[in-house]
Amino acid sequence: MDDYLAALDFASTDPRDAADAEGTEGLVDAMRHSLLAGGKRIRPVLCLATAASLGEPAERMLPSAAALELIHTYSLIHDDLPAMDDDDLRRGRPTCHVVYGEDTAILAGDALFAEAVRLVCERQEGGPAVKVRILAELSLATGVTGMVGGQYLDLNDAGRESPEALARVHALKTGRLMAAAVHCGLALSPPAPEVDAAYRAFARELGLLFQIVDDILDVAGTEEDLGKAVGADARRGKVTYVSLHGLAGARALAEQTHGRARALLETIPGDVAELIDITDLVYARDN
Amino acid sequence: MDDYLAALDFASTDPRDAADAEGTEGLVDAMRHSLLAGGKRIRPVLCLATAASLGEPAERMLPSAAALELIHTYSLIHDDLPAMDDDDLRRGRPTCHVVYGEDTAILAGDALFAEAVRLVCERQEGGPAVKVRILAELSLATGVTGMVGGQYLDLNDAGRESPEALARVHALKTGRLMAAAVHCGLALSPPAPEVDAAYRAFARELGLLFQIVDDILDVAGTEEDLGKAVGADARRGKVTYVSLHGLAGARALAEQTHGRARALLETIPGDVAELIDITDLVYARDN
Repeated sequence: MDDYLAALDFASTDPRDAADAEGTEGLVDAMRHSLLAGGKRIRPVLCLATAASLGEPAERMLPSAAALELIHTYSLIHDDLPAMDDDDLRRGRPTCHVVYGEDTAILAGDALFAEAVRLVCERQEGGPAVKVRILAELSLATGVTGMVGGQYLDLNDAGRESPEALARVHALKTGRLMAAAVHCGLALSPPAPEVDAAYRAFARELGLLFQIVDDILDVAGTEEDLGKAVGADARRGKVTYVSLHGLAGARALAEQTHGRARALLETIPGDVAELIDITDLVYARDN
Repeated sequence: MDDYLAALDFASTDPRDAADAEGTEGLVDAMRHSLLAGGKRIRPVLCLATAASLGEPAERMLPSAAALELIHTYSLIHDDLPAMDDDDLRRGRPTCHVVYGEDTAILAGDALFAEAVRLVCERQEGGPAVKVRILAELSLATGVTGMVGGQYLDLNDAGRESPEALARVHALKTGRLMAAAVHCGLALSPPAPEVDAAYRAFARELGLLFQIVDDILDVAGTEEDLGKAVGADARRGKVTYVSLHGLAGARALAEQTHGRARALLETIPGDVAELIDITDLVYARDN
Protein backbone atom coordinates (compact mmCIF):
# COMPACT_ATOMS: atom_id res chain seq x y z
CA MET A 1 0.00 0.00 0.00
CA ASP A 2 2.80 2.39 0.95
CA ASP A 3 4.57 1.85 -2.38
CA TYR A 4 1.38 2.64 -4.26
CA LEU A 5 0.81 5.80 -2.23
CA ALA A 6 4.43 6.89 -2.63
CA ALA A 7 4.17 6.51 -6.42
CA LEU A 8 1.21 8.90 -6.71
CA ASP A 9 2.50 12.10 -8.27
CA PHE A 10 -0.81 14.01 -8.58
CA ALA A 11 0.24 15.26 -12.02
CA SER A 12 -2.15 15.77 -14.84
CA THR A 13 -2.71 12.81 -17.10
CA ASP A 14 -2.86 15.18 -20.04
CA PRO A 15 0.66 15.93 -21.33
CA ARG A 16 -0.58 19.31 -22.62
CA ASP A 17 -1.15 20.25 -18.98
CA ALA A 18 2.31 19.28 -17.73
CA ALA A 19 3.59 22.85 -17.88
CA ASP A 20 0.68 24.02 -15.76
CA ALA A 21 1.80 21.94 -12.80
CA GLU A 22 5.09 23.85 -12.69
CA GLY A 23 5.31 25.66 -9.38
CA THR A 24 2.87 23.40 -7.54
CA GLU A 25 5.70 21.19 -6.24
CA GLY A 26 5.44 22.76 -2.75
CA LEU A 27 1.77 21.84 -2.58
CA VAL A 28 2.51 18.26 -3.59
CA ASP A 29 5.31 18.13 -1.00
CA ALA A 30 2.83 19.15 1.70
CA MET A 31 0.37 16.47 0.56
CA ARG A 32 3.09 13.82 0.55
CA HIS A 33 4.48 14.96 3.92
CA SER A 34 1.21 13.95 5.58
CA LEU A 35 0.30 11.06 3.27
CA LEU A 36 3.64 9.28 3.60
CA ALA A 37 4.15 9.78 7.33
CA GLY A 38 3.38 6.14 8.03
CA GLY A 39 0.21 5.56 9.97
CA LYS A 40 -1.74 2.34 10.26
CA ARG A 41 -3.30 2.44 6.76
CA ILE A 42 -6.25 0.70 8.37
CA ARG A 43 -8.82 2.01 5.88
CA PRO A 44 -7.02 0.85 2.72
CA VAL A 45 -6.00 -2.42 4.35
CA LEU A 46 -9.62 -2.99 5.41
CA CYS A 47 -10.85 -2.24 1.90
CA LEU A 48 -8.37 -4.67 0.32
CA ALA A 49 -9.10 -7.38 2.92
CA THR A 50 -12.84 -7.07 2.26
CA ALA A 51 -12.28 -7.40 -1.48
CA ALA A 52 -9.94 -10.37 -0.84
CA SER A 53 -12.63 -12.12 1.23
CA LEU A 54 -14.80 -12.00 -1.91
CA GLY A 55 -12.00 -13.39 -4.07
CA GLU A 56 -10.88 -10.10 -5.60
CA PRO A 57 -7.11 -9.59 -6.03
CA ALA A 58 -5.81 -6.54 -4.17
CA GLU A 59 -4.54 -4.89 -7.36
CA ARG A 60 -8.07 -4.39 -8.60
CA MET A 61 -8.99 -2.30 -5.53
CA LEU A 62 -5.75 -0.36 -5.01
CA PRO A 63 -6.94 3.00 -6.44
CA SER A 64 -10.00 3.10 -4.18
CA ALA A 65 -7.99 1.83 -1.21
CA ALA A 66 -5.53 4.66 -1.80
CA ALA A 67 -8.40 7.13 -2.19
CA LEU A 68 -9.58 6.19 1.31
CA GLU A 69 -6.15 7.00 2.71
CA LEU A 70 -6.00 10.30 0.79
CA ILE A 71 -9.35 11.30 2.29
CA HIS A 72 -8.31 10.20 5.77
CA THR A 73 -5.07 12.17 5.45
CA TYR A 74 -6.95 15.26 4.24
CA SER A 75 -9.18 15.06 7.32
CA LEU A 76 -6.16 14.78 9.62
CA ILE A 77 -4.51 17.84 8.03
CA HIS A 78 -7.66 19.95 8.42
CA ASP A 79 -8.46 18.65 11.92
CA ASP A 80 -4.94 19.54 13.07
CA LEU A 81 -5.22 23.19 11.92
CA PRO A 82 -4.90 25.93 14.56
CA ALA A 83 -8.55 26.92 13.97
CA MET A 84 -9.59 23.32 14.71
CA ASP A 85 -7.80 20.97 17.14
CA ASP A 86 -4.50 22.88 16.91
CA ASP A 87 -2.22 19.83 17.01
CA ASP A 88 1.51 20.15 16.34
CA LEU A 89 2.37 16.48 16.20
CA ARG A 90 0.80 13.71 14.10
CA ARG A 91 2.10 10.26 13.22
CA GLY A 92 5.29 11.26 15.04
CA ARG A 93 5.96 14.24 12.74
CA PRO A 94 5.25 17.95 12.89
CA THR A 95 1.80 18.50 11.41
CA CYS A 96 1.35 19.83 7.89
CA HIS A 97 0.64 23.44 8.85
CA VAL A 98 3.64 23.54 11.20
CA VAL A 99 5.95 22.67 8.32
CA TYR A 100 4.21 24.31 5.34
CA GLY A 101 2.03 27.03 6.85
CA GLU A 102 -1.71 27.15 7.39
CA ASP A 103 -2.57 28.28 3.86
CA THR A 104 -0.71 25.44 2.20
CA ALA A 105 -2.09 22.93 4.73
CA ILE A 106 -5.68 23.93 3.95
CA LEU A 107 -4.95 23.59 0.23
CA ALA A 108 -3.10 20.28 0.69
CA GLY A 109 -6.21 18.85 2.38
CA ASP A 110 -8.46 20.21 -0.35
CA ALA A 111 -6.23 18.80 -3.08
CA LEU A 112 -6.01 15.37 -1.45
CA PHE A 113 -9.79 15.11 -1.55
CA ALA A 114 -9.93 16.13 -5.23
CA GLU A 115 -7.12 13.72 -6.10
CA ALA A 116 -8.95 10.91 -4.29
CA VAL A 117 -12.00 11.41 -6.51
CA ARG A 118 -9.76 11.63 -9.58
CA LEU A 119 -7.96 8.42 -8.63
CA VAL A 120 -11.22 6.48 -8.52
CA CYS A 121 -12.47 8.03 -11.77
CA GLU A 122 -9.25 7.43 -13.69
CA ARG A 123 -7.83 4.22 -12.26
CA GLN A 124 -10.39 2.07 -10.46
CA GLU A 125 -11.23 -1.15 -12.33
CA GLY A 126 -14.66 -2.66 -12.87
CA GLY A 127 -16.34 -0.04 -15.06
CA PRO A 128 -18.35 3.14 -14.43
CA ALA A 129 -21.04 1.53 -12.25
CA VAL A 130 -18.38 0.29 -9.80
CA LYS A 131 -16.71 3.71 -9.74
CA VAL A 132 -20.00 5.47 -9.02
CA ARG A 133 -20.83 2.97 -6.26
CA ILE A 134 -17.45 3.72 -4.64
CA LEU A 135 -17.67 7.50 -5.08
CA ALA A 136 -21.18 7.50 -3.63
CA GLU A 137 -19.87 5.66 -0.55
CA LEU A 138 -16.87 7.97 -0.21
CA SER A 139 -18.86 11.20 -0.58
CA LEU A 140 -21.60 10.06 1.79
CA ALA A 141 -18.96 9.06 4.36
CA THR A 142 -17.21 12.42 4.01
CA GLY A 143 -19.98 15.05 3.89
CA VAL A 144 -22.51 16.48 6.32
CA THR A 145 -23.74 13.09 7.51
CA GLY A 146 -20.22 11.72 7.63
CA MET A 147 -16.70 12.71 8.61
CA VAL A 148 -17.06 16.49 8.23
CA GLY A 149 -20.39 16.55 10.07
CA GLY A 150 -18.81 14.47 12.84
CA GLN A 151 -15.87 16.85 13.17
CA TYR A 152 -18.36 19.73 13.39
CA LEU A 153 -20.24 17.96 16.20
CA ASP A 154 -16.96 17.16 17.92
CA LEU A 155 -15.76 20.78 17.80
CA ASN A 156 -19.08 21.98 19.13
CA ASP A 157 -19.29 19.23 21.75
CA ALA A 158 -22.82 18.66 20.50
CA GLY A 159 -24.78 16.45 22.86
CA ARG A 160 -21.77 14.68 24.27
CA GLU A 161 -23.41 14.43 27.66
CA SER A 162 -24.85 10.97 26.98
CA PRO A 163 -23.25 7.70 25.84
CA GLU A 164 -25.67 7.65 22.89
CA ALA A 165 -24.64 11.13 21.77
CA LEU A 166 -20.96 10.21 22.03
CA ALA A 167 -21.53 7.13 19.90
CA ARG A 168 -23.25 9.30 17.31
CA VAL A 169 -20.36 11.78 17.07
CA HIS A 170 -17.93 8.94 16.53
CA ALA A 171 -20.21 7.13 14.11
CA LEU A 172 -20.03 10.20 11.88
CA LYS A 173 -16.48 11.35 12.54
CA THR A 174 -14.60 8.06 12.17
CA GLY A 175 -17.18 5.30 11.82
CA ARG A 176 -18.54 6.28 8.43
CA LEU A 177 -15.21 6.36 6.61
CA MET A 178 -14.11 3.14 8.30
CA ALA A 179 -17.37 1.55 7.18
CA ALA A 180 -16.92 3.05 3.71
CA ALA A 181 -13.62 1.14 3.48
CA VAL A 182 -15.56 -2.11 3.85
CA HIS A 183 -18.38 -0.93 1.56
CA CYS A 184 -15.89 0.03 -1.16
CA GLY A 185 -14.31 -3.40 -0.82
CA LEU A 186 -17.71 -4.90 -1.68
CA ALA A 187 -18.15 -2.83 -4.84
CA LEU A 188 -16.42 -5.09 -7.35
CA SER A 189 -18.36 -8.26 -6.44
CA PRO A 190 -21.44 -7.28 -4.43
CA PRO A 191 -22.51 -10.21 -2.23
CA ALA A 192 -26.10 -11.35 -1.54
CA PRO A 193 -28.13 -8.89 0.58
CA GLU A 194 -27.87 -10.87 3.84
CA VAL A 195 -24.09 -11.22 3.46
CA ASP A 196 -23.83 -7.53 2.54
CA ALA A 197 -25.73 -6.71 5.74
CA ALA A 198 -23.29 -8.79 7.79
CA TYR A 199 -20.29 -6.98 6.26
CA ARG A 200 -21.93 -3.63 7.01
CA ALA A 201 -22.76 -4.59 10.61
CA PHE A 202 -19.17 -5.77 11.03
CA ALA A 203 -17.91 -2.45 9.65
CA ARG A 204 -19.96 -0.54 12.24
CA GLU A 205 -18.62 -2.63 15.12
CA LEU A 206 -15.04 -2.27 13.91
CA GLY A 207 -15.40 1.51 13.66
CA LEU A 208 -16.78 1.60 17.19
CA LEU A 209 -14.00 -0.66 18.49
CA PHE A 210 -11.41 1.57 16.86
CA GLN A 211 -12.77 4.65 18.59
CA ILE A 212 -13.08 3.05 22.04
CA VAL A 213 -9.48 1.84 21.82
CA ASP A 214 -8.42 5.31 20.64
CA ASP A 215 -10.01 6.87 23.72
CA ILE A 216 -8.32 4.28 25.96
CA LEU A 217 -4.92 4.92 24.36
CA ASP A 218 -5.31 8.65 24.89
CA VAL A 219 -5.08 8.02 28.65
CA ALA A 220 -3.25 4.69 28.82
CA GLY A 221 -0.94 4.87 25.78
CA THR A 222 2.45 6.44 25.30
CA GLU A 223 3.32 9.28 22.95
CA GLU A 224 5.59 6.83 21.14
CA ASP A 225 2.68 4.41 20.53
CA LEU A 226 0.35 7.12 19.40
CA GLY A 227 2.65 9.37 17.40
CA LYS A 228 0.83 12.29 18.97
CA ALA A 229 0.47 13.90 22.40
CA VAL A 230 -1.32 11.74 25.02
CA GLY A 231 -3.98 13.10 27.34
CA ALA A 232 -5.10 15.62 24.74
CA ASP A 233 -8.78 14.68 25.10
CA ALA A 234 -8.75 15.14 28.88
CA ARG A 235 -6.94 18.49 28.61
CA ARG A 236 -9.64 19.68 26.22
CA GLY A 237 -12.33 18.43 28.60
CA LYS A 238 -13.67 16.14 25.90
CA VAL A 239 -16.19 13.49 26.79
CA THR A 240 -14.73 10.13 25.76
CA TYR A 241 -15.52 6.47 26.34
CA VAL A 242 -13.05 6.62 29.24
CA SER A 243 -14.53 9.76 30.82
CA LEU A 244 -18.02 8.24 30.52
CA HIS A 245 -17.28 4.68 31.58
CA GLY A 246 -13.91 4.82 33.35
CA LEU A 247 -10.83 2.99 32.05
CA ALA A 248 -12.02 -0.45 33.17
CA GLY A 249 -15.50 0.22 31.79
CA ALA A 250 -14.12 1.34 28.43
CA ARG A 251 -11.94 -1.79 28.28
CA ALA A 252 -14.98 -3.99 28.97
CA LEU A 253 -16.83 -2.17 26.20
CA ALA A 254 -13.92 -2.76 23.82
CA GLU A 255 -13.93 -6.47 24.69
CA GLN A 256 -17.67 -6.77 23.99
CA THR A 257 -17.39 -4.84 20.73
CA HIS A 258 -14.45 -6.98 19.60
CA GLY A 259 -16.55 -10.07 20.38
CA ARG A 260 -19.48 -8.82 18.32
CA ALA A 261 -17.22 -7.91 15.36
CA ARG A 262 -15.62 -11.39 15.43
CA ALA A 263 -19.04 -13.07 15.70
CA LEU A 264 -20.28 -11.18 12.64
CA LEU A 265 -17.23 -12.25 10.63
CA GLU A 266 -18.05 -15.88 11.43
CA THR A 267 -21.37 -15.51 9.60
CA ILE A 268 -19.64 -14.38 6.39
CA PRO A 269 -18.74 -17.04 3.79
CA GLY A 270 -15.37 -16.76 2.08
CA ASP A 271 -11.91 -16.36 3.50
CA VAL A 272 -12.20 -13.69 6.20
CA ALA A 273 -8.78 -14.46 7.75
CA GLU A 274 -7.40 -11.00 6.94
CA LEU A 275 -10.49 -9.28 8.32
CA ILE A 276 -10.09 -11.29 11.54
CA ASP A 277 -6.44 -10.19 11.74
CA ILE A 278 -7.40 -6.53 11.32
CA THR A 279 -10.12 -6.81 13.96
CA ASP A 280 -7.70 -8.39 16.42
CA LEU A 281 -5.04 -5.82 15.61
CA VAL A 282 -7.40 -2.90 16.25
CA TYR A 283 -8.33 -4.48 19.57
CA ALA A 284 -4.73 -5.34 20.43
CA ARG A 285 -3.52 -1.75 20.16
CA ASP A 286 -4.50 -1.55 23.83
CA ASN A 287 -3.57 -5.15 24.75
CA MET B 1 -30.86 27.50 -10.58
CA ASP B 2 -31.27 29.39 -7.31
CA ASP B 3 -34.44 27.46 -6.44
CA TYR B 4 -32.63 24.18 -7.00
CA LEU B 5 -29.69 25.27 -4.84
CA ALA B 6 -31.99 26.56 -2.11
CA ALA B 7 -33.81 23.22 -1.99
CA LEU B 8 -30.63 21.22 -1.31
CA ASP B 9 -30.77 20.11 2.31
CA PHE B 10 -27.58 18.00 2.45
CA ALA B 11 -29.39 15.39 4.52
CA SER B 12 -28.74 11.71 4.26
CA THR B 13 -30.86 9.85 1.76
CA ASP B 14 -31.00 6.92 4.16
CA PRO B 15 -33.82 7.43 6.69
CA ARG B 16 -31.88 5.32 9.21
CA ASP B 17 -29.26 8.08 9.24
CA ALA B 18 -31.68 10.94 9.88
CA ALA B 19 -30.91 11.00 13.60
CA ASP B 20 -27.19 11.29 12.88
CA ALA B 21 -27.63 14.65 11.18
CA GLU B 22 -29.03 16.11 14.40
CA GLY B 23 -26.72 18.87 15.56
CA THR B 24 -25.16 19.56 12.16
CA GLU B 25 -27.68 22.33 11.42
CA GLY B 26 -25.07 25.02 12.14
CA LEU B 27 -22.74 23.49 9.56
CA VAL B 28 -25.50 23.42 6.95
CA ASP B 29 -26.37 27.05 7.82
CA ALA B 30 -22.77 28.05 7.10
CA MET B 31 -22.83 26.17 3.77
CA ARG B 32 -26.10 27.81 2.78
CA HIS B 33 -24.94 31.26 3.93
CA SER B 34 -22.27 31.24 1.24
CA LEU B 35 -24.11 29.15 -1.35
CA LEU B 36 -27.26 31.27 -1.33
CA ALA B 37 -25.59 34.70 -1.20
CA GLY B 38 -26.47 35.38 -4.82
CA GLY B 39 -23.51 35.55 -7.15
CA LYS B 40 -23.52 35.25 -10.91
CA ARG B 41 -24.01 31.46 -11.05
CA ILE B 42 -21.93 31.63 -14.20
CA ARG B 43 -20.60 28.06 -13.93
CA PRO B 44 -24.00 26.33 -13.60
CA VAL B 45 -25.56 28.64 -16.20
CA LEU B 46 -22.70 27.87 -18.57
CA CYS B 47 -23.13 24.13 -18.00
CA LEU B 48 -26.86 24.28 -18.68
CA ALA B 49 -26.42 26.49 -21.75
CA THR B 50 -23.85 24.07 -23.17
CA ALA B 51 -26.22 21.14 -22.65
CA ALA B 52 -29.05 23.19 -24.18
CA SER B 53 -26.96 23.88 -27.29
CA LEU B 54 -26.81 20.09 -27.75
CA GLY B 55 -30.56 19.77 -27.30
CA GLU B 56 -30.53 18.56 -23.67
CA PRO B 57 -33.23 19.99 -21.39
CA ALA B 58 -31.82 21.86 -18.40
CA GLU B 59 -33.47 19.54 -15.87
CA ARG B 60 -31.23 16.67 -16.96
CA MET B 61 -28.07 18.62 -16.04
CA LEU B 62 -29.25 20.42 -12.89
CA PRO B 63 -27.42 18.19 -10.35
CA SER B 64 -24.05 18.65 -12.06
CA ALA B 65 -24.72 22.35 -12.64
CA ALA B 66 -25.41 22.68 -8.92
CA ALA B 67 -22.30 20.65 -8.11
CA LEU B 68 -20.21 23.22 -10.01
CA GLU B 69 -21.65 26.01 -7.87
CA LEU B 70 -21.07 24.01 -4.66
CA ILE B 71 -17.42 23.55 -5.63
CA HIS B 72 -17.03 27.21 -6.60
CA THR B 73 -18.60 28.28 -3.28
CA TYR B 74 -16.31 25.94 -1.34
CA SER B 75 -13.30 27.54 -3.04
CA LEU B 76 -14.53 31.05 -2.17
CA ILE B 77 -15.01 30.09 1.49
CA HIS B 78 -11.51 28.63 1.75
CA ASP B 79 -9.86 31.43 -0.27
CA ASP B 80 -11.44 34.04 2.04
CA LEU B 81 -10.02 32.46 5.21
CA PRO B 82 -7.64 34.56 7.34
CA ALA B 83 -4.78 32.16 6.53
CA MET B 84 -5.41 32.72 2.81
CA ASP B 85 -6.71 35.98 1.26
CA ASP B 86 -8.31 37.15 4.55
CA ASP B 87 -11.41 38.72 3.01
CA ASP B 88 -14.29 39.92 5.16
CA LEU B 89 -16.77 40.68 2.41
CA ARG B 90 -17.99 38.46 -0.42
CA ARG B 91 -21.04 38.72 -2.64
CA GLY B 92 -21.99 41.73 -0.50
CA ARG B 93 -22.15 39.71 2.72
CA PRO B 94 -19.75 39.05 5.57
CA THR B 95 -17.68 36.00 4.61
CA CYS B 96 -18.38 32.58 6.07
CA HIS B 97 -15.63 32.62 8.69
CA VAL B 98 -16.65 36.12 9.87
CA VAL B 99 -20.14 34.85 10.66
CA TYR B 100 -19.51 31.23 11.68
CA GLY B 101 -15.87 31.12 12.76
CA GLU B 102 -12.82 29.76 11.00
CA ASP B 103 -13.32 26.17 12.09
CA THR B 104 -16.88 25.98 10.76
CA ALA B 105 -15.88 27.80 7.56
CA ILE B 106 -13.15 25.25 6.81
CA LEU B 107 -15.62 22.43 7.41
CA ALA B 108 -18.37 24.14 5.38
CA GLY B 109 -16.00 24.24 2.39
CA ASP B 110 -15.00 20.62 2.90
CA ALA B 111 -18.63 19.53 3.16
CA LEU B 112 -19.68 21.47 0.05
CA PHE B 113 -17.08 19.55 -1.97
CA ALA B 114 -18.25 16.19 -0.60
CA GLU B 115 -21.89 17.09 -1.21
CA ALA B 116 -21.05 18.12 -4.79
CA VAL B 117 -19.67 14.65 -5.48
CA ARG B 118 -22.66 13.06 -3.76
CA LEU B 119 -25.09 15.14 -5.81
CA VAL B 120 -23.60 13.89 -9.07
CA CYS B 121 -23.50 10.27 -7.84
CA GLU B 122 -27.05 10.27 -6.52
CA ARG B 123 -28.98 12.57 -8.85
CA GLN B 124 -27.28 13.15 -12.19
CA GLU B 125 -29.15 11.50 -15.08
CA GLY B 126 -27.63 9.55 -17.95
CA GLY B 127 -26.20 6.51 -16.17
CA PRO B 128 -22.87 5.71 -14.48
CA ALA B 129 -20.65 6.49 -17.49
CA VAL B 130 -22.00 10.05 -17.67
CA LYS B 131 -21.54 10.49 -13.90
CA VAL B 132 -17.93 9.31 -14.07
CA ARG B 133 -17.22 11.60 -17.04
CA ILE B 134 -18.54 14.54 -15.02
CA LEU B 135 -16.74 13.60 -11.79
CA ALA B 136 -13.49 13.15 -13.69
CA GLU B 137 -13.86 16.68 -15.12
CA LEU B 138 -14.76 18.15 -11.71
CA SER B 139 -11.92 16.47 -9.83
CA LEU B 140 -9.32 17.32 -12.48
CA ALA B 141 -10.50 20.95 -12.47
CA THR B 142 -10.31 21.08 -8.67
CA GLY B 143 -7.08 19.32 -7.71
CA VAL B 144 -3.37 20.01 -8.04
CA THR B 145 -3.54 20.84 -11.75
CA GLY B 146 -6.73 22.86 -11.25
CA MET B 147 -8.34 25.28 -8.86
CA VAL B 148 -6.41 24.31 -5.71
CA GLY B 149 -3.06 24.28 -7.51
CA GLY B 150 -3.90 27.70 -8.98
CA GLN B 151 -4.73 29.13 -5.56
CA TYR B 152 -1.41 27.75 -4.30
CA LEU B 153 0.46 29.48 -7.15
CA ASP B 154 -1.51 32.67 -6.51
CA LEU B 155 -0.68 32.70 -2.79
CA ASN B 156 2.97 32.10 -3.54
CA ASP B 157 3.04 34.59 -6.41
CA ALA B 158 4.75 31.87 -8.39
CA GLY B 159 6.18 33.14 -11.62
CA ARG B 160 3.84 36.09 -11.92
CA GLU B 161 6.56 38.23 -13.41
CA SER B 162 5.57 37.41 -17.00
CA PRO B 163 2.27 37.59 -18.90
CA GLU B 164 2.59 33.86 -19.68
CA ALA B 165 3.01 32.97 -16.00
CA LEU B 166 0.01 35.10 -15.07
CA ALA B 167 -2.11 33.37 -17.69
CA ARG B 168 -1.03 30.02 -16.26
CA VAL B 169 -2.05 30.91 -12.70
CA HIS B 170 -5.47 31.99 -13.90
CA ALA B 171 -5.86 29.00 -16.20
CA LEU B 172 -5.54 26.79 -13.12
CA LYS B 173 -7.27 28.94 -10.52
CA THR B 174 -10.42 29.94 -12.40
CA GLY B 175 -10.08 28.72 -15.98
CA ARG B 176 -10.20 25.01 -15.28
CA LEU B 177 -13.47 25.04 -13.34
CA MET B 178 -15.03 27.43 -15.85
CA ALA B 179 -13.98 25.07 -18.64
CA ALA B 180 -15.25 22.10 -16.61
CA ALA B 181 -18.68 23.75 -16.64
CA VAL B 182 -18.66 23.51 -20.44
CA HIS B 183 -17.14 20.01 -20.42
CA CYS B 184 -19.80 18.76 -17.98
CA GLY B 185 -22.46 20.24 -20.24
CA LEU B 186 -21.11 18.03 -23.06
CA ALA B 187 -21.31 14.82 -21.00
CA LEU B 188 -24.89 13.77 -21.75
CA SER B 189 -24.57 14.00 -25.55
CA PRO B 190 -20.87 14.11 -26.49
CA PRO B 191 -20.47 15.85 -29.87
CA ALA B 192 -18.08 14.84 -32.65
CA PRO B 193 -14.37 15.40 -31.84
CA GLU B 194 -13.97 18.59 -33.89
CA VAL B 195 -17.09 20.13 -32.31
CA ASP B 196 -15.92 19.00 -28.89
CA ALA B 197 -12.60 20.74 -29.55
CA ALA B 198 -14.42 23.97 -30.50
CA TYR B 199 -16.44 23.87 -27.26
CA ARG B 200 -13.25 23.32 -25.26
CA ALA B 201 -11.38 26.14 -27.02
CA PHE B 202 -14.39 28.41 -26.38
CA ALA B 203 -14.34 27.42 -22.70
CA ARG B 204 -10.68 28.43 -22.42
CA GLU B 205 -11.28 31.84 -24.02
CA LEU B 206 -14.31 32.48 -21.81
CA GLY B 207 -12.33 31.63 -18.66
CA LEU B 208 -9.58 33.99 -19.77
CA LEU B 209 -12.08 36.74 -20.58
CA PHE B 210 -13.69 36.33 -17.17
CA GLN B 211 -10.34 36.78 -15.42
CA ILE B 212 -9.24 39.80 -17.45
CA VAL B 213 -12.57 41.52 -16.73
CA ASP B 214 -12.22 40.58 -13.04
CA ASP B 215 -8.83 42.28 -12.91
CA ILE B 216 -10.24 45.35 -14.67
CA LEU B 217 -13.17 45.55 -12.25
CA ASP B 218 -10.82 45.36 -9.29
CA VAL B 219 -9.50 48.79 -10.27
CA ALA B 220 -12.38 50.25 -12.31
CA GLY B 221 -15.45 48.73 -10.61
CA THR B 222 -17.39 49.80 -7.55
CA GLU B 223 -17.77 47.84 -4.32
CA GLU B 224 -21.50 47.67 -5.09
CA ASP B 225 -20.86 46.03 -8.49
CA LEU B 226 -18.37 43.59 -7.10
CA GLY B 227 -19.93 42.69 -3.76
CA LYS B 228 -16.42 42.80 -2.34
CA ALA B 229 -13.75 45.39 -1.61
CA VAL B 230 -12.22 47.04 -4.71
CA GLY B 231 -8.50 47.60 -5.15
CA ALA B 232 -7.69 44.48 -3.13
CA ASP B 233 -5.28 43.12 -5.74
CA ALA B 234 -3.28 46.35 -5.87
CA ARG B 235 -3.10 46.57 -2.06
CA ARG B 236 -1.70 43.04 -2.00
CA GLY B 237 0.79 43.96 -4.72
CA LYS B 238 -0.63 41.26 -6.98
CA VAL B 239 0.38 41.11 -10.59
CA THR B 240 -2.82 41.35 -12.66
CA TYR B 241 -3.75 41.93 -16.30
CA VAL B 242 -4.07 45.61 -15.40
CA SER B 243 -0.71 45.86 -13.63
CA LEU B 244 0.95 44.11 -16.58
CA HIS B 245 -0.81 45.82 -19.47
CA GLY B 246 -2.37 48.97 -17.98
CA LEU B 247 -6.12 49.55 -17.89
CA ALA B 248 -6.39 50.36 -21.61
CA GLY B 249 -4.19 47.39 -22.51
CA ALA B 250 -6.27 45.04 -20.38
CA ARG B 251 -9.45 46.35 -22.00
CA ALA B 252 -7.98 45.75 -25.47
CA LEU B 253 -7.06 42.22 -24.38
CA ALA B 254 -10.62 41.66 -23.14
CA GLU B 255 -12.01 42.85 -26.47
CA GLN B 256 -9.76 40.48 -28.44
CA THR B 257 -10.58 37.55 -26.15
CA HIS B 258 -14.30 38.27 -26.42
CA GLY B 259 -13.93 38.29 -30.21
CA ARG B 260 -12.15 34.92 -30.24
CA ALA B 261 -14.78 33.37 -27.95
CA ARG B 262 -17.60 34.64 -30.17
CA ALA B 263 -15.82 33.41 -33.32
CA LEU B 264 -15.46 29.91 -31.83
CA LEU B 265 -19.16 29.81 -31.00
CA GLU B 266 -19.95 30.53 -34.63
CA THR B 267 -18.22 27.29 -35.65
CA ILE B 268 -20.47 25.22 -33.37
CA PRO B 269 -23.65 23.74 -34.85
CA GLY B 270 -26.81 23.87 -32.75
CA ASP B 271 -28.47 26.73 -30.94
CA VAL B 272 -25.66 28.59 -29.17
CA ALA B 273 -27.79 31.70 -28.43
CA GLU B 274 -27.48 31.25 -24.66
CA LEU B 275 -23.74 30.73 -24.86
CA ILE B 276 -23.45 33.96 -26.87
CA ASP B 277 -25.49 35.77 -24.20
CA ILE B 278 -23.22 34.48 -21.43
CA THR B 279 -20.10 35.48 -23.36
CA ASP B 280 -21.45 38.99 -23.93
CA LEU B 281 -22.53 39.25 -20.30
CA VAL B 282 -19.08 38.30 -19.02
CA TYR B 283 -17.55 40.91 -21.33
CA ALA B 284 -20.20 43.52 -20.46
CA ARG B 285 -19.45 43.42 -16.73
CA ASP B 286 -16.88 46.10 -17.57
CA ASN B 287 -18.89 47.79 -20.33
